[in-house]
Amino acid sequence: MGPRTARLLAAFALLVLVARSSGAAASTARRRETLLEDDRAEPEGPGRKHCPPTDAEPPPPGRVDSSKQLADLRRLMKRHNHELGLPLDAYIITSNDEHQSEYLSAWDRRREYVSGFSGSNGVAVVTATRAALWTDGRYLLQADDQLDCHWTLMEHESMADWLRLELPENASVGVDPRLISQHAWDTLSRQLGAVGINLKEVSKNLVDIIWTSERPKFDSFKAFVHNESFSGMAWTRKVELVREVLRSLDANAMVVTSLEEVAWLFNIRGYDIEYMPVVRAYAILSMKEIYLFINESKLPYHVKRHLRTNNCFNELCVRLRTYENILKDIRTFCQQWTKVLLPAPCVYDQGVSRAVYTAVHPPKKRFLHISPILLLKAKKNNVESYGMRAAHIRDAVAFCDFMAYFEKKLEEGVIWTEMKAAKEIDRFRGEQRHSKGPSFTTIAGYGPNGALPHYVPTEATNLVIGNKSTFVLDSGGQYLDGTTDVTRTLHFGTPTDFQKEVYTRVLMGSIQLAALVFPVNVKMTDVDVLARGPLWEAGLDYDHGTGHGIGSFLGVHESPINILYDGGNFTFHKGYFFSDEPGYYEEGQFGVRLENILEVEERPTKHNRGEIFYGFRPVTLIPYEPKLMNTALLSKDQRDWLNYYNSQIRLKVGAELKRQRRMRGFHWMMSKTGYIPNHCSSARKIFDFNYSYLLLSILVYFGHV
Amino acid sequence: MGPRTARLLAAFALLVLVARSSGAAASTARRRETLLEDDRAEPEGPGRKHCPPTDAEPPPPGRVDSSKQLADLRRLMKRHNHELGLPLDAYIITSNDEHQSEYLSAWDRRREYVSGFSGSNGVAVVTATRAALWTDGRYLLQADDQLDCHWTLMEHESMADWLRLELPENASVGVDPRLISQHAWDTLSRQLGAVGINLKEVSKNLVDIIWTSERPKFDSFKAFVHNESFSGMAWTRKVELVREVLRSLDANAMVVTSLEEVAWLFNIRGYDIEYMPVVRAYAILSMKEIYLFINESKLPYHVKRHLRTNNCFNELCVRLRTYENILKDIRTFCQQWTKVLLPAPCVYDQGVSRAVYTAVHPPKKRFLHISPILLLKAKKNNVESYGMRAAHIRDAVAFCDFMAYFEKKLEEGVIWTEMKAAKEIDRFRGEQRHSKGPSFTTIAGYGPNGALPHYVPTEATNLVIGNKSTFVLDSGGQYLDGTTDVTRTLHFGTPTDFQKEVYTRVLMGSIQLAALVFPVNVKMTDVDVLARGPLWEAGLDYDHGTGHGIGSFLGVHESPINILYDGGNFTFHKGYFFSDEPGYYEEGQFGVRLENILEVEERPTKHNRGEIFYGFRPVTLIPYEPKLMNTALLSKDQRDWLNYYNSQIRLKVGAELKRQRRMRGFHWMMSKTGYIPNHCSSARKIFDFNYSYLLLSILVYFGHV
Repeated sequence: MGPRTARLLAAFALLVLVARSSGAAASTARRRETLLEDDRAEPEGPGRKHCPPTDAEPPPPGRVDSSKQLADLRRLMKRHNHELGLPLDAYIITSNDEHQSEYLSAWDRRREYVSGFSGSNGVAVVTATRAALWTDGRYLLQADDQLDCHWTLMEHESMADWLRLELPENASVGVDPRLISQHAWDTLSRQLGAVGINLKEVSKNLVDIIWTSERPKFDSFKAFVHNESFSGMAWTRKVELVREVLRSLDANAMVVTSLEEVAWLFNIRGYDIEYMPVVRAYAILSMKEIYLFINESKLPYHVKRHLRTNNCFNELCVRLRTYENILKDIRTFCQQWTKVLLPAPCVYDQGVSRAVYTAVHPPKKRFLHISPILLLKAKKNNVESYGMRAAHIRDAVAFCDFMAYFEKKLEEGVIWTEMKAAKEIDRFRGEQRHSKGPSFTTIAGYGPNGALPHYVPTEATNLVIGNKSTFVLDSGGQYLDGTTDVTRTLHFGTPTDFQKEVYTRVLMGSIQLAALVFPVNVKMTDVDVLARGPLWEAGLDYDHGTGHGIGSFLGVHESPINILYDGGNFTFHKGYFFSDEPGYYEEGQFGVRLENILEVEERPTKHNRGEIFYGFRPVTLIPYEPKLMNTALLSKDQRDWLNYYNSQIRLKVGAELKRQRRMRGFHWMMSKTGYIPNHCSSARKIFDFNYSYLLLSILVYFGHV
Repeated sequence: MGPRTARLLAAFALLVLVARSSGAAASTARRRETLLEDDRAEPEGPGRKHCPPTDAEPPPPGRVDSSKQLADLRRLMKRHNHELGLPLDAYIITSNDEHQSEYLSAWDRRREYVSGFSGSNGVAVVTATRAALWTDGRYLLQADDQLDCHWTLMEHESMADWLRLELPENASVGVDPRLISQHAWDTLSRQLGAVGINLKEVSKNLVDIIWTSERPKFDSFKAFVHNESFSGMAWTRKVELVREVLRSLDANAMVVTSLEEVAWLFNIRGYDIEYMPVVRAYAILSMKEIYLFINESKLPYHVKRHLRTNNCFNELCVRLRTYENILKDIRTFCQQWTKVLLPAPCVYDQGVSRAVYTAVHPPKKRFLHISPILLLKAKKNNVESYGMRAAHIRDAVAFCDFMAYFEKKLEEGVIWTEMKAAKEIDRFRGEQRHSKGPSFTTIAGYGPNGALPHYVPTEATNLVIGNKSTFVLDSGGQYLDGTTDVTRTLHFGTPTDFQKEVYTRVLMGSIQLAALVFPVNVKMTDVDVLARGPLWEAGLDYDHGTGHGIGSFLGVHESPINILYDGGNFTFHKGYFFSDEPGYYEEGQFGVRLENILEVEERPTKHNRGEIFYGFRPVTLIPYEPKLMNTALLSKDQRDWLNYYNSQIRLKVGAELKRQRRMRGFHWMMSKTGYIPNHCSSARKIFDFNYSYLLLSILVYFGHV
């Protein structure tokens, strides 16, 4: 899944779309530049489609009537209520939850309720007379369909510029401090202040007040324990590790705001957010106490026992508190603390909310710092690493079986759309052991849709998958023992030479990165050039990062790994897992992306001088499409890498496919992993290799491995 | 020449060796870390060799008696003189001149006069009772030989730490503000302040007072005009360009402190500093006036006419001022200016001196900013680029002719030492048209000496060049039309397999970088991984940068290019010239380094999407050593690159060798540039290529090209 998807975009939606000169993460710099250029090019937002609708131009399907929501909201905004900070000239509705999560629970989709726009990323602003929505390029068409004519769809104008023109001097604009990160608040209030507008914290969320009927339930799901056989480490040990870091930083306590970090820290999981197996909860960790802010109804008895909530009297017992009391309790607890660590933004994580940040008082006690849990979580232990590999093998089984079925159906002349393919791949994954559903919305794009890196098929865009162009399938699964994320590009007809060249260059880049061996002080930004080189050579490139970290039965975008040549300054560590996903997108024609998950491992080198070197081990074991390759472009080393990779698929995935008696998938896999003759190596070498390869294949067939 | 040589080291000698937690340029970060580790490992400096000397252990040859200098200096330091800022508890003697140049004129070698240590980089500190010298790893042995027993040779302890132990609270330490950069002053005074020591500016240099007898002449050399046929642009145009930048920065004026920038700006050159064809002068550029601070005796009539010093009454006339009045005049001129640009440190340039910085008054008028001249100078115009290529062809002729002669002598059994080889290569260069001597001290290292990246042979270390190990020759020339810098590694016997593997991997890295094609926003730091990859693959690496910019008949280390994966953030531009010089150093055994100068040029790509791509054109055209290659390691693309490179040498250098009737060199060149068969390409292709290659060779031989 492209590193520039939901999470990163959400992270800089406010920072970039809204506040131009923001101090957003380096990894957003290029994107920001693009936006700025666009600004110059086109100062106005685009006109709305079918507004007002006529008989000739009826409202598009899926358009939502927002009259009532806007009326209710405006009535509230006008009301005088000092305690709430009313009246307001404008109100901002972000697409965040209290934890600034990548995905939102249905209950948290306030912006969608008010505007009707259901995309994952966007900010709405409502004034007494107007309503505007900002989103990123992926969603402009969808927003134009879904928003009714009350709404202006903003594309290039920043929120500060727009509000300056809309509102009087010293107007006050409100936002819920729990639903905006401290970092975003800083940037936005500076931007608005510069144009004489005051950003105000409105403690009670206005949407929550008006959203009475048909609101999804808030907290219906139960949490469950993530066994040590998967997590590999007792939560008490994790707490000790975090405390060690806090001690080294002279911090008395930290507030854990990210749901992934809470889940990782306590080895618990849940169903509160789609695609992400987390539980809605805050945690506060001090040297002596552990507080978990959660609605007790979510905790079955065995989870409470796991968390040692009862009859436990040392510093490794969890004390349960009411979720809603987090801010109040922080204010109370602070009195005994002098330095409280609050998570700073880091790559895909937006960090602490404005509300939690200000709850720590006086300000000198606030210690913005990268969360120690974030870094501990990124470094998988042996059990987690083993689980990731195992999950990826079962994931490959599902993929091969799906592809065999898919191709068979197409041969039978059955019509498949993008949405059908997305639904089916999820179903096949669901059949695998430990499956807990998809890890993100499947990206399934045929032809022109494949040329949109972050495309997600909708009723409006859904294409029939044909045999003229490429089909990009980017999907992943959540399993108890690991999270997967893989992209393959397919073609069901005869690819053009250009399609083959592009596919091959993308593959070469992917291999160049995967095959690198390097000393430990090399930064992630240093290696991006390897993945792009083969495309650059032909004058091609792609406008997204090359890789992102991935969690172990957690988020599919996990900080701090972000491989982008103007990205961050982190280095790799043993146990990091991340995606290697170069691509190419020919606008209006077709797309190519190939994504593997790689594991960072120590690599013995021929000449050992005592220095530690790292290399990458491909964890994704899914065949490439031979008919899309122009093997003449591959170097000897690249061919060797590919042949070894294919032999690994036959060995590991082949065995599992047969264990599961999925012979259709097995034969499909074998047909895609044939030996690629290596013109470069000497005849003798070819012979050897072919021979062993042949032997291997025979063994695989007759199940002796 | 390794980018970590004199200049960079000088730049951070004070910042790093002296002040640990300095804000030195990112490119020094790794080096600094190493030092810090060493610190922990070994807090003390090393003991001195043969101190005190005995009959059994006589003082080494070349040791200098510094008693008189130290006595004179201490007498001065004790004296009370408020105006001079005396008395002092300690006095710092840097190895800088007023312009923080890379090399020093004989007149400026104050540290050498006081201590006897002649290395290019080092700082001396003299207290009432003790004397200490800091230098970098390259020079420890030499310093230990040259310094007499009054001196402590510091290796790991920082100056601040040492002075804290040596001096009382509130002691005052003096330094000449003209001989230390503002940046270094900042760091050092902060460091000393932290340990309760005051850093004081001593306006009159104490060494100048005591250095009366046998001091080299100050200013004996005449300047000369660097014709537009070489510089490609009238100096008046250059002045206009700089003024445009100043205007865009709202600066009224700038002080040009770097000698290279003065030389470039006015198209004048001189002989004031060895290896660098510059004239000792300052310049001040305002919107209306141009002041050149120089001793008029250095300017023959034709140079004055070139500079329009007489009967000229517009804003493009040079007004001559006395060199020594620079500070006084800055104070006067400042009254009419509100914002004065003062060069900030940038890669190899240390920026403005403390003295010039403080001369601008009040402080709010000081505008530290990267010198616009530095960036204009780096981007060579068409005439300069043409000259660089032409100079490198003549340089190759000298190199080939020298090598043929060298090998012949060795075959005849003549004994050659490193120093002899260094002397001879310089002599051969001297025979070439437009030659103005070497561009730096030739590095000529056999066996273990070759394993010291910055080794320079001295009487004490001079080895006889044998046939068991490799010989690293890193040398370059100054020509009126360009500056060259090339490294080749040779072997006069039968290399071991390991020597061949290392040589080949270094060559592969060099080619990987040279063959890159990339979009314009790629940073220099992004490409370093390409040059190191082939070594990393085998567990090897080198502890210096991969490349440095180079001037056009100016400095051999020119900012801003510094290719190092934790280096700066500059991008490449058309017309930049820089070195590509990976290496490997097997301590005590042998070294390998291969250095080519590359030119950044726009590169048409197969699929043109309107975006501009850059590529590199090798300007150095000197053969590699086939017997040191293990061609089986080379990829098809690398072989193709090498064969094309060799064909270019045969074409261009071959023609010039024959024009100069240097047939000995011609045959040597031809013998080293044979076609490397390419197992990877199809038979047909080999045939084609061989055929054309054969044809080319025949044509070259019979002079039809």
